[in-house]
Amino acid sequence: MERVKVAVLGGSGYTAVELMKILLRHPGAEVAAVTSRQDEHVADLHPSLLGRLDLRCEPFDPDRLKAKGVRVAFGCLPHGTSMEAVPPLLDRGIRVIDLSADYRLRDPAVYREWYKEAHHDPANLARAVYGLPEVYGDRIATAELIANPGCYPQTAILGLAPLLANGLVEPAGIIVDSKSGVSGGGRTPKLPFHFPECNENFAAYSVGSHRHTPEIEQVLSDVAGRPVSVVFTPHLVPMDRGIFSTIYATPTRSVAEAELTELYRAYYAGKPFVRVRTTIPATKDTAGTNFLDVAVKVVRGGKVVVLAAEDNLVRGASGVAVQNFNRMFGFPETAGLL
Amino acid sequence: MERVKVAVLGGSGYTAVELMKILLRHPGAEVAAVTSRQDEHVADLHPSLLGRLDLRCEPFDPDRLKAKGVRVAFGCLPHGTSMEAVPPLLDRGIRVIDLSADYRLRDPAVYREWYKEAHHDPANLARAVYGLPEVYGDRIATAELIANPGCYPQTAILGLAPLLANGLVEPAGIIVDSKSGVSGGGRTPKLPFHFPECNENFAAYSVGSHRHTPEIEQVLSDVAGRPVSVVFTPHLVPMDRGIFSTIYATPTRSVAEAELTELYRAYYAGKPFVRVRTTIPATKDTAGTNFLDVAVKVVRGGKVVVLAAEDNLVRGASGVAVQNFNRMFGFPETAGLL
Amino acid sequence: MERVKVAVLGGSGYTAVELMKILLRHPGAEVAAVTSRQDEHVADLHPSLLGRLDLRCEPFDPDRLKAKGVRVAFGCLPHGTSMEAVPPLLDRGIRVIDLSADYRLRDPAVYREWYKEAHHDPANLARAVYGLPEVYGDRIATAELIANPGCYPQTAILGLAPLLANGLVEPAGIIVDSKSGVSGGGRTPKLPFHFPECNENFAAYSVGSHRHTPEIEQVLSDVAGRPVSVVFTPHLVPMDRGIFSTIYATPTRSVAEAELTELYRAYYAGKPFVRVRTTIPATKDTAGTNFLDVAVKVVRGGKVVVLAAEDNLVRGASGVAVQNFNRMFGFPETAGLL
Amino acid sequence: MERVKVAVLGGSGYTAVELMKILLRHPGAEVAAVTSRQDEHVADLHPSLLGRLDLRCEPFDPDRLKAKGVRVAFGCLPHGTSMEAVPPLLDRGIRVIDLSADYRLRDPAVYREWYKEAHHDPANLARAVYGLPEVYGDRIATAELIANPGCYPQTAILGLAPLLANGLVEPAGIIVDSKSGVSGGGRTPKLPFHFPECNENFAAYSVGSHRHTPEIEQVLSDVAGRPVSVVFTPHLVPMDRGIFSTIYATPTRSVAEAELTELYRAYYAGKPFVRVRTTIPATKDTAGTNFLDVAVKVVRGGKVVVLAAEDNLVRGASGVAVQNFNRMFGFPETAGLL
Repeated sequence: MERVKVAVLGGSGYTAVELMKILLRHPGAEVAAVTSRQDEHVADLHPSLLGRLDLRCEPFDPDRLKAKGVRVAFGCLPHGTSMEAVPPLLDRGIRVIDLSADYRLRDPAVYREWYKEAHHDPANLARAVYGLPEVYGDRIATAELIANPGCYPQTAILGLAPLLANGLVEPAGIIVDSKSGVSGGGRTPKLPFHFPECNENFAAYSVGSHRHTPEIEQVLSDVAGRPVSVVFTPHLVPMDRGIFSTIYATPTRSVAEAELTELYRAYYAGKPFVRVRTTIPATKDTAGTNFLDVAVKVVRGGKVVVLAAEDNLVRGASGVAVQNFNRMFGFPETAGLL
Repeated sequence: MERVKVAVLGGSGYTAVELMKILLRHPGAEVAAVTSRQDEHVADLHPSLLGRLDLRCEPFDPDRLKAKGVRVAFGCLPHGTSMEAVPPLLDRGIRVIDLSADYRLRDPAVYREWYKEAHHDPANLARAVYGLPEVYGDRIATAELIANPGCYPQTAILGLAPLLANGLVEPAGIIVDSKSGVSGGGRTPKLPFHFPECNENFAAYSVGSHRHTPEIEQVLSDVAGRPVSVVFTPHLVPMDRGIFSTIYATPTRSVAEAELTELYRAYYAGKPFVRVRTTIPATKDTAGTNFLDVAVKVVRGGKVVVLAAEDNLVRGASGVAVQNFNRMFGFPETAGLL
Repeated sequence: MERVKVAVLGGSGYTAVELMKILLRHPGAEVAAVTSRQDEHVADLHPSLLGRLDLRCEPFDPDRLKAKGVRVAFGCLPHGTSMEAVPPLLDRGIRVIDLSADYRLRDPAVYREWYKEAHHDPANLARAVYGLPEVYGDRIATAELIANPGCYPQTAILGLAPLLANGLVEPAGIIVDSKSGVSGGGRTPKLPFHFPECNENFAAYSVGSHRHTPEIEQVLSDVAGRPVSVVFTPHLVPMDRGIFSTIYATPTRSVAEAELTELYRAYYAGKPFVRVRTTIPATKDTAGTNFLDVAVKVVRGGKVVVLAAEDNLVRGASGVAVQNFNRMFGFPETAGLL
Repeated sequence: MERVKVAVLGGSGYTAVELMKILLRHPGAEVAAVTSRQDEHVADLHPSLLGRLDLRCEPFDPDRLKAKGVRVAFGCLPHGTSMEAVPPLLDRGIRVIDLSADYRLRDPAVYREWYKEAHHDPANLARAVYGLPEVYGDRIATAELIANPGCYPQTAILGLAPLLANGLVEPAGIIVDSKSGVSGGGRTPKLPFHFPECNENFAAYSVGSHRHTPEIEQVLSDVAGRPVSVVFTPHLVPMDRGIFSTIYATPTRSVAEAELTELYRAYYAGKPFVRVRTTIPATKDTAGTNFLDVAVKVVRGGKVVVLAAEDNLVRGASGVAVQNFNRMFGFPETAGLL
């Protein structure tokens, strides 16, 4: 079987290298091009790839990608930059799985509100499918443009979906207290991610203002069939990778823990990458994998507490991107991911 | 001025060594005895004390402590053990600052419910003063027995006290999402604290069942003047020390962030170890100190989010113990602690 | 093609879980049995395997393994225990890849000297092949019993082999200064590996007395064709995994760095898992892989400094075990390992 | 007693904040000025100082410092910058303790060779005293300009001094294999110190070319009374602070471990900050202190192995600076440092 030629756009960061590692194991994909402003061999940017991938970074040139036979491009570009690169690719018939935030929010006004700039490509927003296979799975196979979901939102969405789809919790004011490893901040050196600053340290950031908030609300409102609002607080954990979300919701009626666990198991039946647990999830159990582990608890006073864990670079970004790729090109959903 | 002779009971753990380091800097204290079942020189148990403290551990013997002129004992014993050691000390006129949980809960029935054993010394429960100087400061100077507060509870209590004292938030169902460094789990090797298990990992534990819950509720109910209930979820952070609590409360009326910050500043005026901030606290800013940093935010939807950080071994245990010692023996509140 | 049925002996530790993860990806292996004294489902011992491996641990019973069709057993048992399990397996025609130290040293007297107990199975010592494919590759395919190499020794041996095979450095008193992540200490909780003890800490241990010393010397003496002696100092690094060795040797003649690099490249040509670099290796470049990265430098004063890095659990244990398995059962050397 | 007014030059980095914390505890010092190009309150640069130091950074102006009554300036400036600031201070009678490398090497040609630029202030080189109290203690009290020693060199120098002073080891080709926490790299964000790059990673750097090499050799040659040469290899450890050096030397005659330990004890008698141990030092035992722990071992083959540990920011920089300050202004050597 011929491998599908893929391009990785913006090859210098953490999601890009994670993606390349997954694709190198994938039986049906071939990394045909890696673009970057850095004119270097890929393995010089990422020494872990020494001996694995013999490619030099090239400038972004959609015609050249087309000429190489690239059928799909994974965008690992920053938001704002991504929406410049996507239109010329789509115009040339190259499908795009965009890992940036640019095509996740349906309403350009919401984009402007949270990202503080106008959306430059509103025309393609309508074509974009939010690439969360467990929620929008039926639309992914035929999509030309996938808005790959954010890392934090997946834990909140998959953690709450069974409850909201069944009207079991109040949709307003759900609390999502999330904790992320530092690789979520990207590879550009900045003081908050300087080792002696964030090591042996724990703190919240972007309290009440993190850009993943509207993304969580948009998808959960779809799931619930009515407006959902969350209070979302991200924190930085001194570790490389992993996201853990502790979610607090108020049930609409008295619920039992065992009943909810069954509900989750039924909701995620046939979804190979969501593991419903009765023990407490931990990020390390999911490290380097595409699994999202979830448990649901009922505590004193009747509150529902959902615990969700994932690897932010795999499940939270590059792994789910390959899961989308598998659906788009007819591979088994788990190809390259186990 | 003659130094006050003190004993450290249970000298092998982390709170004990932290306490000894503080006391070695204190102008008015002298460590006259360290007790432990381990028959070793203190500096062999804690090589960081090499050349600092020339004492050998001795078995616990209240008469011997009395004979040495010990006026106060700091109890660094496990709960359950502590309430065996306290009565003979009090009987001999040795005051006690107990860092265990044994004398924190006023009602022995609540102790039994959460600690799964009967309280052996209910008679002394009534004498015990909860050693949180910012709340019970007027009672500490004359106390014979101090129940030194738990590490997590201090962040929850001091984080919420100004709001509850003023009736500004609903007293039921307040969410306290706390994160602690691993030293909070003590020095006895156990699998959850084995380096390759908890390093590069993040998870919740004791969801809905942590023993600090009734302690938080007891003190906050005192502050509020009516019953307060919390949903408390602790998490383990891969770092040595530090606690960060993210607290979510529902205001009883519309509130503005600046108004609340002013309220906190007024409430903690003259309290040298609570720092009210407008920036986001971080555990590292408090590392190795007795400071508890707190900020109060009002977020989308009107929820109040309080952020509180401290060092779990200093402020959360041994530092506040010395703060209590200072009040008990007439030293300036900050002696040995800056 | 039918998969080769394998057993994992001693399934509760870190090398076992790493091995199972590799085998689950291997196209030609099937994990047919996992033995342990712990009567639990494998995924309860290792939650990362949830949904991956549906096996319950069973007691060690060589007849039962034979009946299941197991053709090779990977021994992840402690030294001392391993040499009890190996003979009954070999007797039943089950080949063994032993990850313990029990069959690495040819001379039982040397075993007794370093491991402080007599060897119980000297008869099989002669059958054992030291499973370092880059050195003893021609003997592995037909071996019945593989003594899988130690983690530290591989960095020392592969770091020095090209020099010693060519008589380019003095064979006596070579200095091997090695640093290892904490998983090398195993999964049993002990104070030195308790998080608050080893986190934010760096120290040497077993100075002048580590048991990997004779193993390094035995193999390097084979390579050199004359006795080689080393001063080996291991250190503990506050990280999960990875070994880095800094090796100091005195050249027998004036040498140039470029010449040595070429020598290394020639020596390791066709060896897919040794990467000769001109940049400085780092453990993270090899994390989770079977690669051993090596660089050779000539510094002021003419000393040769070799830098070698590997993942201690993969290359240092379970990965090289699968590399041996591949040679023993006719799979490509890299099967399951890229 | 009137406190000595001091200035801290270059207040934004790690050695500066560490120094300020020590000085705030010092009974005889007053931080009268902090200079920086960053026009901010000191506590905004270093939130750990909130409530401790109410000073705003000011531009460097020697006249203004003089007018404020500053008697000594601690220079926490980068090398190259420091030698611009020192002459005007000395000209105004302000003594300087320079924590940069600018005045450590006696010979400007050596400076140029290793720092790749000409020395701008050779005139003052002759006035500078290398501020290692255990070696040059008699010259420090009256010095106008102290070249505060480097972090790595102190472990190498104090680790080897007793041996070299007594001619017990060969002076050529001594191997110093050193490992440092990341704060040694400073506070400016750079890729090698970006958390996800250096966390869970271990590697050597500057192999054969680190600038501390000539400093080590210069001082050890003084101690030995003849030229000493070292092979110095630094490594980066994923921890905040701490340096551990493993030193390999060849004895000039047969030596016994106990004999050497006694020699070290005699050599460091009366030196309060060097702790000679028979157990293995660990960086954590010295964390946050001015102690340098050292042990000497004799291993197989007769090699001498010295193990030395310190806190790189305290003993390695700001602590020893205060130790020098104490000698310069007549305070007890341990003032502010215990």
